[in-house]
Amino acid sequence: MSERPATPLLDRVHVPADMKGLNDSELKQLAQELRVETISAVSVTGGHLGAGLGVVELTVALHAVFDAPRDKIIWDVSHQCYPHKILTGRRDRIRTLRQKDGLSGFTKRTESPYDPFGAAHSSTSISAALGFAVARDLGGRIEHGIGDCVAVIGDGAMSAGMAYEAMNNAGHLGKRLIVILNDNEMSIAPPVGAMSSYLSRLYAGAPFQELKAAAKGAISFLPQPFQEGAKRAKEMVKGFAFGGTLFEELGFSYLGPIDGHDMDQLLAVLRTVKVRADGPILIHAITQKGKGFKPAEDARDRGHGVSKFDVVTGEQKKAKSNAPSYTSVFANTLIDLAAEDAKICAVTAAMPDGTGLNKFMDRFGSRCFDVGIAEQHAVTFSAGLAAGGMKPFCAIYSTFLQRGYDQVVHDVALQRLPVRFPIDRAGLVGADGATHAGAFDTAYLSCLPGFVVMAAADEAELARMVATASNYEDGPIAFRFPRGEGIGVEIPEKPEPLEIGKGRIIREGSRVALLNFGARLKEINEACEALLQKGITPTIADARFAKPLDKELIVGLAENHEALITIEEGSVGGFGSHVAHLLAEEGVFDRGLMFRSMVLPDDFIDQAGPREMYEKAGLNSEDIERKVLDVLGVIALEKRA
Amino acid sequence: MSERPATPLLDRVHVPADMKGLNDSELKQLAQELRVETISAVSVTGGHLGAGLGVVELTVALHAVFDAPRDKIIWDVSHQCYPHKILTGRRDRIRTLRQKDGLSGFTKRTESPYDPFGAAHSSTSISAALGFAVARDLGGRIEHGIGDCVAVIGDGAMSAGMAYEAMNNAGHLGKRLIVILNDNEMSIAPPVGAMSSYLSRLYAGAPFQELKAAAKGAISFLPQPFQEGAKRAKEMVKGFAFGGTLFEELGFSYLGPIDGHDMDQLLAVLRTVKVRADGPILIHAITQKGKGFKPAEDARDRGHGVSKFDVVTGEQKKAKSNAPSYTSVFANTLIDLAAEDAKICAVTAAMPDGTGLNKFMDRFGSRCFDVGIAEQHAVTFSAGLAAGGMKPFCAIYSTFLQRGYDQVVHDVALQRLPVRFPIDRAGLVGADGATHAGAFDTAYLSCLPGFVVMAAADEAELARMVATASNYEDGPIAFRFPRGEGIGVEIPEKPEPLEIGKGRIIREGSRVALLNFGARLKEINEACEALLQKGITPTIADARFAKPLDKELIVGLAENHEALITIEEGSVGGFGSHVAHLLAEEGVFDRGLMFRSMVLPDDFIDQAGPREMYEKAGLNSEDIERKVLDVLGVIALEKRA
Repeated sequence: MSERPATPLLDRVHVPADMKGLNDSELKQLAQELRVETISAVSVTGGHLGAGLGVVELTVALHAVFDAPRDKIIWDVSHQCYPHKILTGRRDRIRTLRQKDGLSGFTKRTESPYDPFGAAHSSTSISAALGFAVARDLGGRIEHGIGDCVAVIGDGAMSAGMAYEAMNNAGHLGKRLIVILNDNEMSIAPPVGAMSSYLSRLYAGAPFQELKAAAKGAISFLPQPFQEGAKRAKEMVKGFAFGGTLFEELGFSYLGPIDGHDMDQLLAVLRTVKVRADGPILIHAITQKGKGFKPAEDARDRGHGVSKFDVVTGEQKKAKSNAPSYTSVFANTLIDLAAEDAKICAVTAAMPDGTGLNKFMDRFGSRCFDVGIAEQHAVTFSAGLAAGGMKPFCAIYSTFLQRGYDQVVHDVALQRLPVRFPIDRAGLVGADGATHAGAFDTAYLSCLPGFVVMAAADEAELARMVATASNYEDGPIAFRFPRGEGIGVEIPEKPEPLEIGKGRIIREGSRVALLNFGARLKEINEACEALLQKGITPTIADARFAKPLDKELIVGLAENHEALITIEEGSVGGFGSHVAHLLAEEGVFDRGLMFRSMVLPDDFIDQAGPREMYEKAGLNSEDIERKVLDVLGVIALEKRA
Repeated sequence: MSERPATPLLDRVHVPADMKGLNDSELKQLAQELRVETISAVSVTGGHLGAGLGVVELTVALHAVFDAPRDKIIWDVSHQCYPHKILTGRRDRIRTLRQKDGLSGFTKRTESPYDPFGAAHSSTSISAALGFAVARDLGGRIEHGIGDCVAVIGDGAMSAGMAYEAMNNAGHLGKRLIVILNDNEMSIAPPVGAMSSYLSRLYAGAPFQELKAAAKGAISFLPQPFQEGAKRAKEMVKGFAFGGTLFEELGFSYLGPIDGHDMDQLLAVLRTVKVRADGPILIHAITQKGKGFKPAEDARDRGHGVSKFDVVTGEQKKAKSNAPSYTSVFANTLIDLAAEDAKICAVTAAMPDGTGLNKFMDRFGSRCFDVGIAEQHAVTFSAGLAAGGMKPFCAIYSTFLQRGYDQVVHDVALQRLPVRFPIDRAGLVGADGATHAGAFDTAYLSCLPGFVVMAAADEAELARMVATASNYEDGPIAFRFPRGEGIGVEIPEKPEPLEIGKGRIIREGSRVALLNFGARLKEINEACEALLQKGITPTIADARFAKPLDKELIVGLAENHEALITIEEGSVGGFGSHVAHLLAEEGVFDRGLMFRSMVLPDDFIDQAGPREMYEKAGLNSEDIERKVLDVLGVIALEKRA
């Protein structure tokens, strides 16, 4: 634990109301203290550092000018919310960030009235803020009331269609609504897309130059002296682009660009907007991700997500890994295959690092496409690539693939186009919590006609599934794998494609069969070891495929055992449900079968360590062991004894 | 049947290659013949009329200038594709449109090589075309090759975020790509949103005025004489807006607006683009939906979707209805409730007529929001409304709700916000075919923690479910109902809310229990009548809820019958799967139960009459009867006898 920094002013601010007596220079001081406190906190918890440091001044200015919780400040994605949490009654728990029973790493409605709308996926804030604004104007009554509605959204998030849909609707409705575009030219990865270039041009065209007289109505309310004690806003607001911006075409007044680290500018603009706004306004603030902490400023990703670190050197204390991550096994296998198959190409939606495709991009730049935060487009673009004779691997995390679901159904499945979906972060994900859990993909994909759905039991299986997907030309194919490290098995150098729809027997036993789908096989094996001690010898099988099911294997297991238990890291409606449907239609239940499905519980599971989360989910080896004993009646016997 | 119009030129054109010898005045003549043929065909089949009539000239011009199937012409939504189908080898089947075993009402890859990418949901065309363009440049090899990639997209479709995501990526990549914005200022409903206003301003700013010299690079390649026989393009292209457009900011060259019914203009622009384009280009064509057929031009919806009609008067031959449609029962009930509850508001994504909300809008204009084709925003906007104390009904068809799936998960379910989802067109939908089937909603919603998922067995039940949803404040709630008419039962004037998670027994019987979820109850009752004749007296129950399940009811049925059969109009993974999971966890299968789930087959079902589709799906009363006989072994006995 590092020593806590001295923060005399921050120590007096427990909630934003405590800031109301501070003058502007004290607010600047408060921002400095907030920055060191943020760095200190994240140094002991790890988490999203760069994003929060980029909005320290903005956070202070927003809470100084607006009146939360009546005014609704909605942070897009919200991994930049740590400074906000510190200022809104949660400083005492800030060193529990992202830990079990601690603060969420994101805004969360159940955590605080200062979090009016939770987030974690990108680009939702304008829609949500518009909903509040309309509710306000319709007389919606809620605790704390509804005042101004402010969405703070990053430039990366502006590549998502959802943000555009919201702007399009907000510009049409004309309600008072404030959008702050936090432009740090660095979302998770360096930005891509035409919008990003456009924002750069806006900035280059008017880099904080002297304010000129403006004819446009957008500017007419700005900047005039607003209150005693504030310097004349005209002097403070150094420069704006005028008129004709893309945002104005969509019905927004556009203000900016302004320097998002210049507290005087921020306060002047926000105070003026607060008094004068009468429609949708976009404030374009330029910030620097990682601002004020040199190791973050210098990092390639600007300190996007960090482990615990030394506050002086920035050196991160990463846990030693015993085995390669699933992500890297996926990427390396794909690279090997792509070296021999020029048709293989890869698509990511703003996650080149997270998906491992950065390595693919280094090798095969012309065959790798980062489309920005744009999962809908990513999927249909991949469908077009497939229709054009390529072999696209559309690599999207389980939770984000939900964004492209209709495109998966309508553009890929219906047309039976061979798009390959590597689905990383399938299952529970640890510190990122419920918003990032990959719980539903097996359910929402396996119901689609013609889809092949696989899950990797370990990293060697993953390598085989990459080869299988590359080899398969008859339609869409998905393979899911979890976050984190593999279990240390040897990875085949030239992985052979699997036979579609064929599972495998891992060990032969009797009475009870454990049917695995995915990366709980290790826990199943551990449960088996414990059961052997108790004289129970389970059969273990790995289904590999949720679709098509290995009918022969599964019906055979059902017929040769008293009990059949499926195990998966997914919700009900997925693998276990498809197995149940098969067994029902085959009449296997008619004559009695102790059938159980172990799935994720019907609940959103808060952040914790992976093992703790699976404990909560009831999917650890002890849970599997207990399930077997329970089904076979051994627990009841033991209890009676 | 009306007499076929004389079409001497069209009779010689079987595929686009046959047009290559035609001069420009013959192409104009061809367009006229194509228009009357389109009207004639739709008069006998019904279908989408207005959209096709609006693009007759564009269709002829595209096929005259480009070389399909090598060049990829991708029609967005593609209900405007009838003229295209007539010109591409399918005229002989054009009077089978939207019928069983006939032509699809949309483009379809399996139907023709001239349909490189199928569609039916909106706003996918730019993504798909970009995929082809990139595949082309990467050397993708497919039958017919890949030449130019042309997306034809309507102004309404431009409100969808997906189109923006695709433009953002296309502008960034800079590949040669042609987007034709077919601006008829009338998608399905009159257009909404800031983009729509923007397009109007573009048009108003340069309404086909004389072409001015242009400094912008966007214009530099345009218009110069291109080939003998064409008049000088400069004279033909009457006017363009220059530079600084929103599309140019996104990296596209912008050409337009042009008159989309002026063949000379169209040919000149397309020929020039074909020769000179070297990056992404957007051609802005102004067209009139329903053009050239007065009854369509005069209709409020410009002949969007019509029944069979008289080609002279335009009078439509609509089937007489026996009972109110589910849609109208939903809308009327909601209106009644809203009259007494000012918190009720409604959201539609460009479907005010289809969802019945046009009537709600007439009564409560300030509480009804048409957000455009923007399902993602619609859902999160509704979440914001709910968080702001309103009672939003977010009315989106089953198939289109797929577009907002992540928002349903992340913004609504995770935050347990009481957004109400009326899900129309749940189940099979007839002439619109597989692309519009509402097959997956029960599966993709019931896996979400905290969701309430209902299905209406008839129109009276639907009214109760509207009341239930209005009354329910604890989280998200969805109720699904089919396309078409109810069954004629009396609708309660003041429908009482249902108890959450409680089903009902319809009739008591023995041996076999039929457990309904949704609008197949009528067929179940019919099956029951037939079974009674054979001495079998089924119990019939209506579950009402797929989530939460009525555990007491369902386990009770299982324990008191030899067989339990679930019936639903949805895919595997839905209601039947949740029932199976419950029964498994309750140990009901341990002692044997003839359990079966009747669900939609694992296939996409092509268009046909509703009864024919359900026959194919195996969900008609005969199928239910057969299933019971089969399960009880009676079929086997009969066969043996």
